Order: sequence, then C-alpha cells, then structure tokens
Amino acid sequence: MNPSVPITVAVGDGIGPEIMSQTLRILEAAGAALVPEFIEVGEATYRAGNTSGIGPEAWESLRRTKVLLKAPITTPLGGGYKSLNVTLRKMLGLYANVRPNRSLHPAVATRFPTLDVVIIRENEEDLYAGIEHQQTPDVVQCLKLVSRTGCEKIVRYAFEYCRQHSRGKLTCMTKDNIMKLTDGLFHRVFMEIGQEYPDIAQDHQIIDIGAARLADTPERYDVVVTLNLYGDIISDIVAQVAGSVGLAGSSNVGDHGALFEAIHGSAPDIAGQDVANPSGLLQAAVLMLKHLGQHDVAARVHNAWLCALEEGQHTADIYRPETSRAKVGTTAFADAVIARL
Amino acid sequence: MNPSVPITVAVGDGIGPEIMSQTLRILEAAGAALVPEFIEVGEATYRAGNTSGIGPEAWESLRRTKVLLKAPITTPLGGGYKSLNVTLRKMLGLYANVRPNRSLHPAVATRFPTLDVVIIRENEEDLYAGIEHQQTPDVVQCLKLVSRTGCEKIVRYAFEYCRQHSRGKLTCMTKDNIMKLTDGLFHRVFMEIGQEYPDIAQDHQIIDIGAARLADTPERYDVVVTLNLYGDIISDIVAQVAGSVGLAGSSNVGDHGALFEAIHGSAPDIAGQDVANPSGLLQAAVLMLKHLGQHDVAARVHNAWLCALEEGQHTADIYRPETSRAKVGTTAFADAVIARL
Ligand SMILES: CC(C)[C@H](C(=O)O)[C@@H](O)C(=O)O
Ligand SMILES: CC(C)[C@H](C(=O)O)[C@@H](O)C(=O)O
Repeated sequence: MNPSVPITVAVGDGIGPEIMSQTLRILEAAGAALVPEFIEVGEATYRAGNTSGIGPEAWESLRRTKVLLKAPITTPLGGGYKSLNVTLRKMLGLYANVRPNRSLHPAVATRFPTLDVVIIRENEEDLYAGIEHQQTPDVVQCLKLVSRTGCEKIVRYAFEYCRQHSRGKLTCMTKDNIMKLTDGLFHRVFMEIGQEYPDIAQDHQIIDIGAARLADTPERYDVVVTLNLYGDIISDIVAQVAGSVGLAGSSNVGDHGALFEAIHGSAPDIAGQDVANPSGLLQAAVLMLKHLGQHDVAARVHNAWLCALEEGQHTADIYRPETSRAKVGTTAFADAVIARL
Repeated sequence: MNPSVPITVAVGDGIGPEIMSQTLRILEAAGAALVPEFIEVGEATYRAGNTSGIGPEAWESLRRTKVLLKAPITTPLGGGYKSLNVTLRKMLGLYANVRPNRSLHPAVATRFPTLDVVIIRENEEDLYAGIEHQQTPDVVQCLKLVSRTGCEKIVRYAFEYCRQHSRGKLTCMTKDNIMKLTDGLFHRVFMEIGQEYPDIAQDHQIIDIGAARLADTPERYDVVVTLNLYGDIISDIVAQVAGSVGLAGSSNVGDHGALFEAIHGSAPDIAGQDVANPSGLLQAAVLMLKHLGQHDVAARVHNAWLCALEEGQHTADIYRPETSRAKVGTTAFADAVIARL
C-alpha cells in the first residue's frame, strides 16, 4: 500500500467539473493513495474580481502539496484577465511541458498506427511572458523573451528525458532563419548541450517544415523539444493525428512542483451534457501517479482505460460506426474503465 | 497574342538555378509573353559584403517591372545577415501572401482527395519585423508588431479574395486567448470587417487547434486568414498533407507590385543533381501569368503540368512505386510538361 499523498485539485470550467469528478472516481476505485484538496480557481474567481483567477488559499494549498491536478479553465475575454494556465506555470516555475502521444491503434482510429512522439515544450518564456503594449494608436506589440538559462533548463531536461525513457532521438524545432537572436539562442544551446549526449541522435528542423512533417509523417519522430508557442501548436497537431486532442494528457514540471492537465480546452459548448471525453485528464492523472511513485496504480488505470477503448467504448469525439461498439457518455465511459480495473 | 511584359527574375541558391531554368523553358515553350531581367540576389551578394543580399541594380529592375519571379534563396547563418525574403516583402509592400493548395488526387498520393484550401497570410508584420535585441547577457528578445492598418489590409484582402474567387467561407486563426492585444486586434478587425461581408461564412479558431484540424481534416476548410508566423507554419502543413510542400506556389501581393515563389526552401543538400521538383516554382509562375492577365498561357501550362503528373511522371519527392510510372529528374519532368503543352 502506498501512503496517502495530499494533492491539489482544480475542477475547472466548462466540461472541467464533469471530467474531473469521473477521473477522481476512477482513481479512487483503482486504489490511488491520494487526498484531494479542492481549490477555487478560474471563471468564478475572475468574476469575483480577482484578475489573476487564483486566490491566496489556492496558493497556500499548492505550496503544501506541490502537485496540482487541473481541469481546463476558461479565461474570460477582455477585462484585462491573465491566462490562469500561464500564471500557474510561471508562479510554480514549471519550465517543462511534457506531452506524450501514442497511437491507440486499432482501439482508436488513426492514420499512423505506430505513432509514438513526445513533445517537450519550454513553458515559461517566449510570447507567453504576456508582455504586451499599445505603442501608438495604430500599433500594438508583444515581447518574445528567451533566456539562455531558460533554454539550458529545457534542453537539458529534454536530453535527460531521452536517456531516462530510452528514447534514441531528439529533434529541435525553431525558426532561427528569421529570429536569429531568440530562436538562434535556443538552437545554439541545443547544439552545445547536445555534445554531452552522444548517445542521443540529434537534429534540427525549421518549425514550418517540422510541423508539416509531424502532420504528415509523425512516425519518423521520437522526442521533439521546442519553444513555448511552437510547442503549443505542434502538440495539438500530434495529439490530433494520433487520434484526438481529447485523449492526451500532459505534465508541467518544475524543480519544486508539478501540474497535470489535459491538453484540450474547457469546451463550454458541450459542458454539463455528460458527453465529454475524460481521457485527457485521466491520462494526466496517470502521469501524476507516476510522478508520485504510485506506478502500480498508474499501470492499473492505464490498462483499464486502454481495455475500455479497445472494447469499443467510445465517447462522441472518437466514435466511428466502423470501429466503435457503443457511443458512451462521460459517466458511462468512467463506469467502463472502472469495470476493467 | 499578349504583348511582351518585362519581369524580374532571381534564380536563387541551392536548387534555385536548376528549377528556375526549367520553369523558364516551360514558360517559353508555352508562349508566355515575358522578357526576363535577371538580377543578382542572395548568397553571392551576401558573400560579396552586402548584408541585405540585394543590390541597387536589382531594386532598379524591380521598380521598373513590379513583378518578381524568385527561386528559393539561402540566407547565410550568423554574420548579421537579414532574410532577403523578408526584406523584399517589406520593401515592396507585399502585404498579402496567398498560398493555394489543392489535392491532385489521384495523380499525386494524398489522404485528402478533395482538399482545396487557400492560406492568406499577413506578410509584413508580426515577429517578421525582425526587431531583436540582446537585453541582458542572459536575455534576448524579439518584438512582435501588429498594426490596425496592417490587420485591416490583410483581412479586407482575404474577404475580397473570397468574393472574387467564389469562396464561401473564411476562417481566422489567432492565439488571442494569450496575446489579447496583438492577436486580439487581428481577431477584432476580422469581426468588424466581416460585417461588411454577410455573404461569406466566418469563424475564428485558436491557432493550436486550428493547425491540428488543418492537419487532420483539411477538407473542412476553404480560405484561412492569419498572422505572418502562423501562416508560415500552417501553409507548410496544408501543402504537405495536400501532397508535398514541393508542389505549392505562392503569390506575395502589394498595391504596387507582386512576387511569385515556391513555398519550399533552397534544399542545398540536393542542389545541382537535377533531381529537384520544379513544380512549386512553376505553380508560382502560373499565378504570375494570371496576375499579368495571360490567362490562356496560364491555363495551358497548368494543364500540361497536371497531365504530366497524372501520367505518373514524378520527381523523387512525390515518387511512389504504386502510383508513379517513371521517376524523373528536373529536366526530364520539364520535358514531360513541354511535351503536353
Ligand atoms: C489554454 C491555453 C492558455 C493553453 C496554452 O496556450 O498553453 C493550451 O492551449 C495548452 O496547450 O495548454
Ligand atoms: C525562407 C523563409 C524566410 C520563409 C518564411 O519564413 O516566410 C519561408 O518559410 C516561406 O514560408 O516563405
């Protein structure tokens, strides 16, 4: 038996609450040794006048647990609200955003049956620093920031990830033919640190053609490391061509904490209808269990989930009349997973 | 007969000279009424000490002809060289980068037989403004610039393009959930100007999921308008899943001139071997012929090219043993096109 660990939980907005409650139900049924502390963040907190979307009690919980399981959050448009995702990543120093993608063929339809690609995305810098100005009545600007320290942390993380996960190849993607200083720095640091990892095959691709090849022949790739915004785009591409953005979980990792979330958004259009796919958040929870050392529970949850998918229990987003057996809702899918634990 | 028109021609670097000479040979055989003026730009000009990669005689020719047919150019890394592509686009005021993509199924293998998507990319602003600084020994920055004037020009261009080309739907892609001022301005201008075009169906997607859907289900899209860097990335994605980035041409359009080019790079690794696919540049030339009002010649070239592809005359980049008849080189492919004029 694992000793119980406190974790912080944010149920999010839109489809957040329903996918979170089903995810927690599965974790409990699987015997995960977790004590959830629920925090209030997101839409309600914004509307209550807190422009950061997160209050002092929430920070207090995070400081204690150092682990956040988070459902998607809606940042209201306008009104000067900052993205809570970005705030959490920055304030918790979560510099590495790790997004594994694997084909579930034949359980889930994909054109790429052997796809197995991990996107490692720098998570604190780039245009996400959130520094924007109105320069003249006609011109607005946003600052793209890149630091050598930041590049070194994420590039080293990516090489170490390759070693620890027996991954043979790391591809760096930048646009350094245009941004010679910023993207150029990222590429240079990649080449410098790469010399310490002669066991890992290394190459660099310009992001435009790299994204095109990831879309077209993702099976050629192993691990990709890139800047924040490019990573945002290519991780959605790879997840989608692997099956669906609705299936992918991610970990946001720092030296003093970690945040686990689905890569998709809060999908307000289908909220409250019990139709959303909880898989992305469940996969994030599996990454969290591994992070906490609960490898046996992680494997149990992952296998039951895979079984449910293989047996054709599919939510609407991945339902295909040819390959699916039943079109199930959020709760029924969780039931199917629990039945297979 | 069309009266002869002077055009400026840059043969480029890498595979540039060979694909240009075959393209010009096809144009001549097709009876295009063109008088090429060759200018020196790119690698040789850079190496001769001109950091912009383009000299006064070249500008002089461009001022006269207002039309440039350009093969890919290599910007040397390091040494403070500026991208010649960016310089040309800015100096000539080419604010709209138009990239049509159409499936050539069954002539060229694609997973999307009915794909027909035009990417319209803002071409002067965004991170391409090229303003980068070393801020501290650790931190570098790049400025992303967006102007209301620039947004209005490209968005209006896109709506007008839809009308003139009987295109029913325009999708705008931005990341305005993060960049509320810059990308937010682009999105707002799209909604404002969109009110003048009730005949065009309109929607907006966040660039991450938009790029993922373009990669996965491109047949859902018609015309997409977006900022410079996103347009760079998604135009490569769509061209690649339509068949190959090697098949796509583009026009860069301004109020006082236009530039036509392939969307791919100079591929120095295969230069001088007579294996490169001249199709991208040839398609750019077809767009140029239409721009010059030589619609009959444009159609003749396009049809002969399509015929050659349909009859399985394929360069190495698109060669598939199942569907191709002959693996041909650059010159032999041009021969095949000319034979079908
Ligand atoms: C919701 C949004 C702020 C976020 C991002 O851009 O990082 C999301 O797209 C993601 O990929 O996690
Ligand atoms: C070569 C490069 C400067 C160029 C760009 O980034 O615009 C190219 O990728 C393109 O898409 O035309």
